[in-house]
Amino acid sequence: MKLENVFSEIDKDKENFIEVLNEIIRIPSISAQKKGIECADKLISLIKREIGFNTKKFETPGYPIVYAEKTVNAPVTLIFYNHYDVQDPSPLDKWDSPPFELTQKDNFLYGRGVSDNKGNLIARIFAIKIYQSIFGKLPLNVKFIIEGEEEVGSPHLPDFIRNYPELIEGDFCIWESGHRNASHQQQVWLGVKGILYLNLEIKASNRDIHSSWGGVIENPAWNLTWALNSLKNKEQKILIKGFYDNVLEPSEKEIELLKNIPFNEKLYKNNFGIKSFTGSGIKLKSDYYFTPTLNIDGLDSGYKGMGAKTIIPSTAKAKIDFRLVPNQNPNEILQKFEEHLRVHGFHQINITSFHGYPPARTSIASPYLKIISRTGENVYKKPLVVHPTKAGSGPMYLFSNRMDCFALGCGYERSNNHAPNENISIEDFLLNMKHFTALFHYFNK
Amino acid sequence: MKLENVFSEIDKDKENFIEVLNEIIRIPSISAQKKGIECADKLISLIKREIGFNTKKFETPGYPIVYAEKTVNAPVTLIFYNHYDVQDPSPLDKWDSPPFELTQKDNFLYGRGVSDNKGNLIARIFAIKIYQSIFGKLPLNVKFIIEGEEEVGSPHLPDFIRNYPELIEGDFCIWESGHRNASHQQQVWLGVKGILYLNLEIKASNRDIHSSWGGVIENPAWNLTWALNSLKNKEQKILIKGFYDNVLEPSEKEIELLKNIPFNEKLYKNNFGIKSFTGSGIKLKSDYYFTPTLNIDGLDSGYKGMGAKTIIPSTAKAKIDFRLVPNQNPNEILQKFEEHLRVHGFHQINITSFHGYPPARTSIASPYLKIISRTGENVYKKPLVVHPTKAGSGPMYLFSNRMDCFALGCGYERSNNHAPNENISIEDFLLNMKHFTALFHYFNK
Repeated sequence: MKLENVFSEIDKDKENFIEVLNEIIRIPSISAQKKGIECADKLISLIKREIGFNTKKFETPGYPIVYAEKTVNAPVTLIFYNHYDVQDPSPLDKWDSPPFELTQKDNFLYGRGVSDNKGNLIARIFAIKIYQSIFGKLPLNVKFIIEGEEEVGSPHLPDFIRNYPELIEGDFCIWESGHRNASHQQQVWLGVKGILYLNLEIKASNRDIHSSWGGVIENPAWNLTWALNSLKNKEQKILIKGFYDNVLEPSEKEIELLKNIPFNEKLYKNNFGIKSFTGSGIKLKSDYYFTPTLNIDGLDSGYKGMGAKTIIPSTAKAKIDFRLVPNQNPNEILQKFEEHLRVHGFHQINITSFHGYPPARTSIASPYLKIISRTGENVYKKPLVVHPTKAGSGPMYLFSNRMDCFALGCGYERSNNHAPNENISIEDFLLNMKHFTALFHYFNK
Repeated sequence: MKLENVFSEIDKDKENFIEVLNEIIRIPSISAQKKGIECADKLISLIKREIGFNTKKFETPGYPIVYAEKTVNAPVTLIFYNHYDVQDPSPLDKWDSPPFELTQKDNFLYGRGVSDNKGNLIARIFAIKIYQSIFGKLPLNVKFIIEGEEEVGSPHLPDFIRNYPELIEGDFCIWESGHRNASHQQQVWLGVKGILYLNLEIKASNRDIHSSWGGVIENPAWNLTWALNSLKNKEQKILIKGFYDNVLEPSEKEIELLKNIPFNEKLYKNNFGIKSFTGSGIKLKSDYYFTPTLNIDGLDSGYKGMGAKTIIPSTAKAKIDFRLVPNQNPNEILQKFEEHLRVHGFHQINITSFHGYPPARTSIASPYLKIISRTGENVYKKPLVVHPTKAGSGPMYLFSNRMDCFALGCGYERSNNHAPNENISIEDFLLNMKHFTALFHYFNK
């Protein structure tokens, strides 16, 4: 038996993978809206049916965590971290097909979560299925940790890991997702940024007030504007006292990596429909990977309909996220943020909810990086591009202090994660499966 | 025949007025949303039926203007200016009864537009009806100009007046609405502020982008925040160059008026549910009446739903209004605003729509003010409170350069214009009618 048999089996079984992927795409598991919690049960039956793993559902105060494992008494244990929740699909009018119905167009698959990260999960499950069907069994122990609240900050994953540390004993971890770059190279990431997400609200009055009172009544939209303005200036510098204090500067080797990472600025600009980035060349890459950020995710106040309405809004709300780098910590940043509001007199602002986690970073020297790269190169016929970190976030810190973690997946640079028309290419979907079977096979000695 | 007969007839016919008022409250004539345009035809048939005036509907590119008149060959002509459009009733969940169904609770009438200003219109029509029924005919000529786009800045009224100047020949004008104050005194206003309303929008990308790009891609919500911040500081000072240049300081007599205007700060604060005003005493009143303002009516960007979504929004929008005082002009202010954006580098901001009109102010020395005050005192049994201007706006300038204009009406200080649970008291509704019949009767010599 050779790996080539596995590969050709994967190609043959394509239609089946797509059908099974649609089984979970159809479930609108939007954790921010408490929808689609039944996706957990669906996954358990799907995993049992397809690969015969031992499964267990762990209830939490939110979405259950799905655990699955197959122990083959091998010396090495691989952990797959995934999540079954997705982002809200709005704005719906920007979708060309229904977000919760997997739609094939040409050689692409469209649907909310197909890249982030239900497609990845299905690719992993079917890599195992095909490998098992050809070679009888896996050459390493494999575990799945599949949570349902990644998109809302994984509030219940820390407790799960604290309560069941034995379940996440392992040697290395493949993180939820990843994508090929614009030059069609497969990529691997050695970490993630941390995050602190805040919902802010000013409640100023018991109702909207006619704006003729604007000369004498404080307007919460103005107070919110002034408060936000005090947090970051036009040069993108975050103005919270001590915000950059604990930032660990990237190592020389990490900076070295930037040179080998292609970054086709023009292509990205076209893709996003933006006029420019805030910088270019190495500065752009360095800002992207190594800079902590403060982003406004949403503003909401007063009248948003057609035409005019002249009111002092009763409330003003903002959603903001900080992306954190080593060694920043969300608790520390939250304290500094609150202190900033206090010192600057923005006592009107309430933090109505928040969540966050610290950043994570795996060493470039990890032996598993070599194995992933070598087996990937065999499948993709090109060297993998290694990134020091994702610019995005995830609760990788829960795993990275126990084992090396690597993010890679079946997306590509126009997969539109968190945006309308999320999609993957069928080719990437199959290559990603093949890479995993090759990775498994490395341990078949 | 005495005026007392008129008054007792008004009291007797109360139920009928309420029923007829509901005929037009039921029509959701929200001009900002192009709804309820049929209200014009309804008014024409209602006016014909109730008071037998000559009516004519003038089509415009937007809502028709309803004109009605009764000429009795008297030396004096009174013009009533009203509008049949209303503000959007959102947020609907804050209403205790359906906004488009007149609802009587205790001695109050609830419904969108009941105070601003359909209730006023019905009070005027029925004052005429009852006066005619008792005295046979009116002692002065009366005209109605009733437009349907006051809430969106009266875009087609200027053309109407330019095209039909003879229709608005008259001696004095009673403006759309007004309200009794917290001390239960009827009030009259000698002017309005001007307005400049702007819809602002930044379109930054072809879709929302994952916020992990926040370090290198400009966020329109940030640019909007910085732009708004540049317009006004926390001390409420408007920072647009030359904004205050043409402001005509109030006269000594106008400032004198402030002393006689009760302003129960505590009561207003309770009513609005606010902690404080930006000032108190004479400063508060002066700011309210004489200061031009810049207000944020709405902010809209990115994700506004439950929980978290981590995106760089593709667009950011704001609605803002300037309230202008003599001798500011909306065209001048718009130019200065555009220049401000240019000078400060906010080239991303598009003004997607705007409307506005200049302020208007009638002299305290007007002889019609004495007549209105004297006849009002007879009805309300207390002197009327005279305000130099409304803090709100209206296209009064179109009339005030031809005749003296006075705003008064049937609302009270908790009528909730532009807000949920808009209402008037039945007592005020009837007193307002009686005042108009007394005003008519003054000319019966």
